[in-house]
This record gives sequence, C-alpha cells and structure tokens, in this order.
Amino acid sequence: METITPNWLQKRADLSPERTALIFNDQSWTFEEIFKIAKKTAGKIVGLLPRNSSRVAILMNNTPEAVWVIYGLQQLGIETVFLNSKLTASELAFQLIDSETELIIYDRLLKNRANELSEALTDIPIISVTDLAERPTFEIAIREEYRLDDVCSIMYTSGTTGKPKGVLQTFGNHWWSATGSVLNIGLQENDSWLCAVPIFHISGLSILIRSIIYGIPVILVEKFDGKLVNSLLSSGEVTIMSAVTAMINRMLSEQENPSYHPAFRCLLAGGGPVPKPLLEVCKERNIPVFQTYGMTETSSQIATLSPEDSLRKLGSAGKPLFPSQLKIMVEQEEAKPMQEGEIFVKGPNITKGYLNRDEVNAASFKDGWFSTGDLGFKDEEGFVYILDRRSDLIISGGENIYPAEIEEILLSHDEVTDAGVTGIPDKKWGHVPYGFVVAGKPINEEEIFAFCRERLASYKVPKRIIQVDQLPRNGANKLMRRLLSQLIENEK
Amino acid sequence: METITPNWLQKRADLSPERTALIFNDQSWTFEEIFKIAKKTAGKIVGLLPRNSSRVAILMNNTPEAVWVIYGLQQLGIETVFLNSKLTASELAFQLIDSETELIIYDRLLKNRANELSEALTDIPIISVTDLAERPTFEIAIREEYRLDDVCSIMYTSGTTGKPKGVLQTFGNHWWSATGSVLNIGLQENDSWLCAVPIFHISGLSILIRSIIYGIPVILVEKFDGKLVNSLLSSGEVTIMSAVTAMINRMLSEQENPSYHPAFRCLLAGGGPVPKPLLEVCKERNIPVFQTYGMTETSSQIATLSPEDSLRKLGSAGKPLFPSQLKIMVEQEEAKPMQEGEIFVKGPNITKGYLNRDEVNAASFKDGWFSTGDLGFKDEEGFVYILDRRSDLIISGGENIYPAEIEEILLSHDEVTDAGVTGIPDKKWGHVPYGFVVAGKPINEEEIFAFCRERLASYKVPKRIIQVDQLPRNGANKLMRRLLSQLIENEK
Repeated sequence: METITPNWLQKRADLSPERTALIFNDQSWTFEEIFKIAKKTAGKIVGLLPRNSSRVAILMNNTPEAVWVIYGLQQLGIETVFLNSKLTASELAFQLIDSETELIIYDRLLKNRANELSEALTDIPIISVTDLAERPTFEIAIREEYRLDDVCSIMYTSGTTGKPKGVLQTFGNHWWSATGSVLNIGLQENDSWLCAVPIFHISGLSILIRSIIYGIPVILVEKFDGKLVNSLLSSGEVTIMSAVTAMINRMLSEQENPSYHPAFRCLLAGGGPVPKPLLEVCKERNIPVFQTYGMTETSSQIATLSPEDSLRKLGSAGKPLFPSQLKIMVEQEEAKPMQEGEIFVKGPNITKGYLNRDEVNAASFKDGWFSTGDLGFKDEEGFVYILDRRSDLIISGGENIYPAEIEEILLSHDEVTDAGVTGIPDKKWGHVPYGFVVAGKPINEEEIFAFCRERLASYKVPKRIIQVDQLPRNGANKLMRRLLSQLIENEK
Repeated sequence: METITPNWLQKRADLSPERTALIFNDQSWTFEEIFKIAKKTAGKIVGLLPRNSSRVAILMNNTPEAVWVIYGLQQLGIETVFLNSKLTASELAFQLIDSETELIIYDRLLKNRANELSEALTDIPIISVTDLAERPTFEIAIREEYRLDDVCSIMYTSGTTGKPKGVLQTFGNHWWSATGSVLNIGLQENDSWLCAVPIFHISGLSILIRSIIYGIPVILVEKFDGKLVNSLLSSGEVTIMSAVTAMINRMLSEQENPSYHPAFRCLLAGGGPVPKPLLEVCKERNIPVFQTYGMTETSSQIATLSPEDSLRKLGSAGKPLFPSQLKIMVEQEEAKPMQEGEIFVKGPNITKGYLNRDEVNAASFKDGWFSTGDLGFKDEEGFVYILDRRSDLIISGGENIYPAEIEEILLSHDEVTDAGVTGIPDKKWGHVPYGFVVAGKPINEEEIFAFCRERLASYKVPKRIIQVDQLPRNGANKLMRRLLSQLIENEK
C-alpha cells in the first residue's frame, strides 16, 4: 500500500509553530516563519519554471537561503539535485545534463562557478538566490501531502568505473532514516542538531529533514570552524552534532575547556572509523562519540555504535539501525562471524536506485538487498566492521574521492601511460589521494598538478604525483590499488 | 513500494539484549529473554495448528503469558484475534466464526468462558496457556522480516447497526502509530510505559508494540488498581501511562502523596475528554495530562493535546499526530472553523479495513479518508473537539458500548415492543447505559436485567430499565437517542 503523509513542513508548522526551526549566526526562525518563507520562495521559483517541471538543481553552501530553496522546492513537489559546490564546472555540467535539470539556483559566493556553468550550458536557466528574491511571488498550491515513494532529492556519487550516478532519495528514504536515528538516540525536548557538514551531502540534508520531522532546531554553520563549533558545544545550545574524523581532530586540538556542556549528548561520527587515540581523548573529555556507517544510498547512517561500546568494539560501526538490515556475503553465501566479505544492506531508508542507470541498478540490487561494494565483517556479537570502502574509496575530510575518476584524468595527460590512485593516511584529512604514474620520460609534478586542478575539484587533486616503473596488477591485469602505497617506500 | 523491516522483536533483542522489556509484579525480563520465550512459545503453538494457518485468537487478561503468546504468534506471522475477556460466550462465538479462527488460547482465569466456548464451537481447537506450556516445542523458522502491509492483529468493534466488525491492524499501522507518538512525546533513556489497560484493546496492545520498537520496558498490571498504580507512579519507575478518565478519577481519589515522582512525564488520557475539575486537580498536582482521541481503527491515538494547552483548550483532543490528518466534513465540503461535522481521518496508522466487510469498507473510505462517524469541530487554531462518538457510542470505564447492540437484545424480549439505549453520566464510569423500553404491560426491571445478563457482557447491561409510553423518533422514524435522557425526568 502506498504510504502518504501530510506535507512535513506544513504539518510541523501547524504542530509547533513557535518552536525554533533554524539558527544561523545570531538570527533564528520558527517553524511557522520558515514555512511562510518556503511558500514564498516556492511562489518565486514557479515563475521561472516551464510547466510540469520536475527537477531543479541547487549550487549553494550552508546558508539560510539554501534552506528556503530546499524547503520551497519540497512545497512544489520538485526533485532537488544537490550540487557539490567544490566540483569544477565540467564535473557539474555532467550532473546537470544527466539529471535533465530545468533550473539552477546558486548563491552569490559561487558566482564564478555559476558563470562558467552558464557559459557551458546555455540552455539551462540559472539564477542567483539574490535575483530570485527580487522576482515576483506567484500564488501557488503547495503539496498538501507527500507520497513516500516520490523522489525528494538527488545526489551524485561516483563508483569504480564510469561516470557519477545520481542517487534517488525518496521522501520515504528520508523518513525511515530519521526514524531509525530517533529510535537509536532518542528525542528530548531540548534537542538541537548542529549542522557543520555541507547540506549538499546527505549528512547535512538529513539534519534539515530530521529537524522538520522531530520539531527541533538546526544550528547551521556556513563553514566548519573548530573554534566556533567548540564554543557552540560549550554553550549548552547544541545536543547533537554530525562530524567526520577530520573535524573532530580539529575541534579537539583547539578545545580550550576540558569538556563540552553536559547537554551535548551525541557526536555522530561518520566517514570511516575514528582512530583509537582520538576515541580515548573523547572518552577522557566525556564526549559521547557514536561511530556510524552510511552512504548517500542509505540516506545517511545505517549502522551506529553506541559510546559505551566505542572502546570495547574499537573500529566497529555498531549494528544496523532498527528499520535496516546488513549482511556480509562471500560467494553468494552469508559469511560466518569474523569472515570478511562484501557488505549488503536492506531497509526502507535505501535508495530505490540510480537515475537513468538500469544496468547498474539491476546489478546493485538482489532480492531487495543493495550491494554496497564495501568490504567488512561482523564479529561474534554481530557488530559490523568496515574494512574498505567500495572501490578503494578515499574519504578525505568527509568528501568521497573515487580513485578511478582521478586515474581517468591522469591517463588523459599526453605523457602518462598508466596511472593508479590510492588514499594515504593524513593527520588533518584522514586520507589524501596520491597519484602513481608511469610515463616514457621524467614527468614534471607541478605540471601534472596544474593539469588536474583544471579538471578536478581541488580536494580530488593528488597531494603527490609519484612516477614509477610499473603499477601492481594482478593476473587479470586488474590494478591492485592497495599495493600502491608500498611504491612510496621504493621511491628514491 | 512495499515496505519491509526486520522482525521487530528479533531486531530489538539484537540491539538491546540486556534492556528490560517487561516488568510484572516483582518479575522482569530482558528483550533477549522475551525473544527466546516468544520463539519457544511459537514452537509450541505450531504443533497445534493445521499447515498454513493464518489466524489464532487469544482470550487472555494482562499476564506475561499473554505477552509470550502475542509475541510468539508474531514470530510465526500469524494474525492474532484479540478477544475481549468481558464478553459473553455468544458474543465471542460470533467473532471466532467471523474471523475463521483456527485455534483459541486462553488463560486459566477465563476457564469458565473457555468451557462455554468449547461447547458452542466444537470444531475450533482451544487450549489453555498452562496446557500449551506442557506441549512439545517444535523447531521453527521464525519470520525474519515483517511486511508492513501484513495484518498483525484483529480487534472487533461494533457500530450503529449490524454485527461487530473485525478491524484489521497491519504491522505498518502499528509502526506509524508508534512513530506518531514518539514524535509527539519524545523518547528518553529512562522511559517505561505503565500498562494498566487491557492488552486486548488497542490502548494496551499499542504499549507492547511501542516497547519493542522503542526498546523500553512495559510495566504490566493484571488489573487496574488505584493504589498500586499510585505507588508505581510515585516510585519513579514509570515515565508514561495510558489511562481513561475513570482510572484517573480513582487514582486521584486514592492518592496519598501530593504529587507523583517527577520522572512521571506523560499521562495519556483516552476515551473522551477529561472533565475540567479533574484537569485542574491534575494541574495542581503537576500531573502532565495529554488528552487524546483515537480508536481501534486508528491503531490507538491519532490526535493529542499537550498539557500546556489542556486548560486553554479545555475539552479538545489537540491536533492530529505528525503522520496523520483529520478533517471535519459537512455535506461533502470541509467545514469552516467552529463548524460541526463528521470527523474523517487519514494516515498510515489507519486500518486497511474491516474483515469480510466489503460494503462497509466501501462506505467507510473515500479517497483514502476514513469516515469515523464521530462528530466534532476544529477551532480557529486547528484544535480538534470531539462532540459525540459515532453512533451515540457510550464509553464506560474505557469500554466501548454501542446502544444498537443492547437495543437488539431488549427487542428480542417477548414483552418489549420498542427499545432505546443511551449513556447517562456516571461519576465512577464516565457514562453508563440506560435502557428505555415500550411494552404492552408493566415490565419487571429485575427480569429484564437477568435477560440481558445472559446475553451481554456485564458492562453493557443497562444500569436501569425505564418503561415509557413511546420513544422519541424523527420524521423518518429514526430513533433520536440523544433525547432519551429527557425521559428520565418525565418518569414518575
């Protein structure tokens, strides 16, 4: 039976009109206020769209204006393509064309990128939020209900091979993700969620959605800043925060008080296991770290480890949340405890598939189980350990980097005949990409950097380019990226 | 898309094996323990059932054994028919035949009723929980997953006319009901829910289900007892309780301490509005009363009023919970604020229909909206007020009584030529039924009582039988039950 709920923001504004919905610097808005702004924003967007438009992209950082646009599009039932503001114009162009986006809305800080896009894609209208605000407001009929099977958001992820894929996140996916989280960490009257991760990633967007469903404020931060976050966590204003290891590192190194405010009850840590020394510092300082595992396709966390288990189950991502399942498969069979294999997940929080990718979808789903491509195992008690993110995924400061994408760029350079990329541990970012190249003559590292910078978001540009005689390949000539790091030692 | 989740009890036992699941008198069980007992119980039940059985009825009061059987049947994916232990054998027989029940499980306190049933229904096997415990335990494959469209429970309700109808409550209905509640009242680590209402009613069953979904203990009480409940609420052991007005009355009149433990944070009050004097006493004593509106068809509460609004919005049932909608209809149009009309509800917590009642179902659902038959209005702020329960429903001490059912019995008496029943306010029970009869010669009240007692659950037997010359009927000859109470004054 199709599940239908009321329009979430309208419902929340009806149930809790005077509760705080959003805090940004020293401004704040109630749910009643943001619902009004969202409707007004929707009324402005409508004037720019062809009839029956179904998709709009946003190129925005963490600002209240981005929130108005996101909520406004939801009022219209329009699918929102979330663009990563760190990507280059050519990376973005691919996503915009692939998603058949009919309008791009950007914020003033991304003006240069928007200009490049508007030159490259002359037939997609593009407007800044500032200009949008000046537009006339049309009377509109907002969606009174959300059908949970409808797509709410699209976010692109890359993979081992091929182009990035648009992950379809339905209203139902977001709902069940929010429900799984609340059943894990509870819901208190004083709760508020600090959002210092990008809202164009699922980690950030899911905070906005939980805020509406739970009726709690989001404290939105434009750009992560250790000192600012520390002062928020010490103020008692924040009870929950989502972060990646690199952020926690910076927070702790800049922390002045010995501990945060006792109201701060949950630090959700994603993007790979938190290293033991860091966990021990957190324990000392009474910081309640919940380690999580999740991805764009699971609409944020799917497994979480409670603080009381964090040292006993070091490196584990805990157990799958209440609505979800996770299993380890080895050659079509479920693995035994401690046996390594591929991670499969199932649950109503999991994407219904990638946009326009029938073949990939057919290969990714088996009997309702989604093949993550990640490797891991469960221990005897069922706690999940992630060994390797899929396709040697590199997570750098919370951003996902796919080696294949960088290798493709390196190989497109005239002098490079073979290329491999892997993640190398880094104190600040967790991991950073290193490029290994084979070339007929000595290469100029600086020249390759420049070549990459033109074509790749800066966080994807290899931190080093190392020339080698040959790359490690297996019998089937498949690149063994995990062996690449050993080449650093051989380097002279 | 069909929604599938893991088996809830199995999942909860995996996530929170050592948390307390159930407390009864001075015994308690963890989730791991009750999952084991449920599986064992399922393994015993299986031996008594024909292959592919789909329905088992339970005739049990609030005991741990009833919980094992309910959870055990869920492990098998068998639909559970919840029998009201206060009904007579003939009332129960109708439900058992209508639901095509294949096995009845009863508890020792209901032995007499069970014996009557087994005589009347020789082809439905019947077993006591005590005998069930002695049965061999078969190895079974439990349900690894719940499909949310599957029926979990069936509870019978009566209506204006005709026989009682079996309300189909799916796993999804229960899930969304539990979710709507948690988004309203939150979820704290120390939460526990006192169940002093019958688990064969949705008010009680929904507490068991929330316990599993939330991972919190149920404190189960065999029979409501004001003193016992008061001591539990004063101990700090209970944070949430479901009650009806009659219970609250008794609790307050027997309360020794000036207030309950501060951990007690929510008294959900169902079964009609709580009278103002009672609310004022609750306020004085810091008892946080949440007035609710709900019914078997909505799988427990669908609207709730927060304590901070309870006196400002006296008599209101608040607003519909997050996943649900409620509207007032007058002649096919949505009513204006303050305008009275029929209450319609919509949401994933609402039954998919009545068992074997295609015609009633077709009449009850319009575009996904369920017609409750109840009358009410919304005020300017959208708060809902219930004026009259459907079909002159009488709520007496939390039990629903349908006048039509009693009138049918009265009319079957040889000397009665016309009959009408209505609810008369009563200090202890809220309302009690009074019978008004027309007869050719003076009737003997005692004899009519005895006649009713044989055919009706005792709470349905009219407290008084009043003989009148004629009943108030409108032009269409429809009985106007609301005018019946005026006949008391005319009585000599």
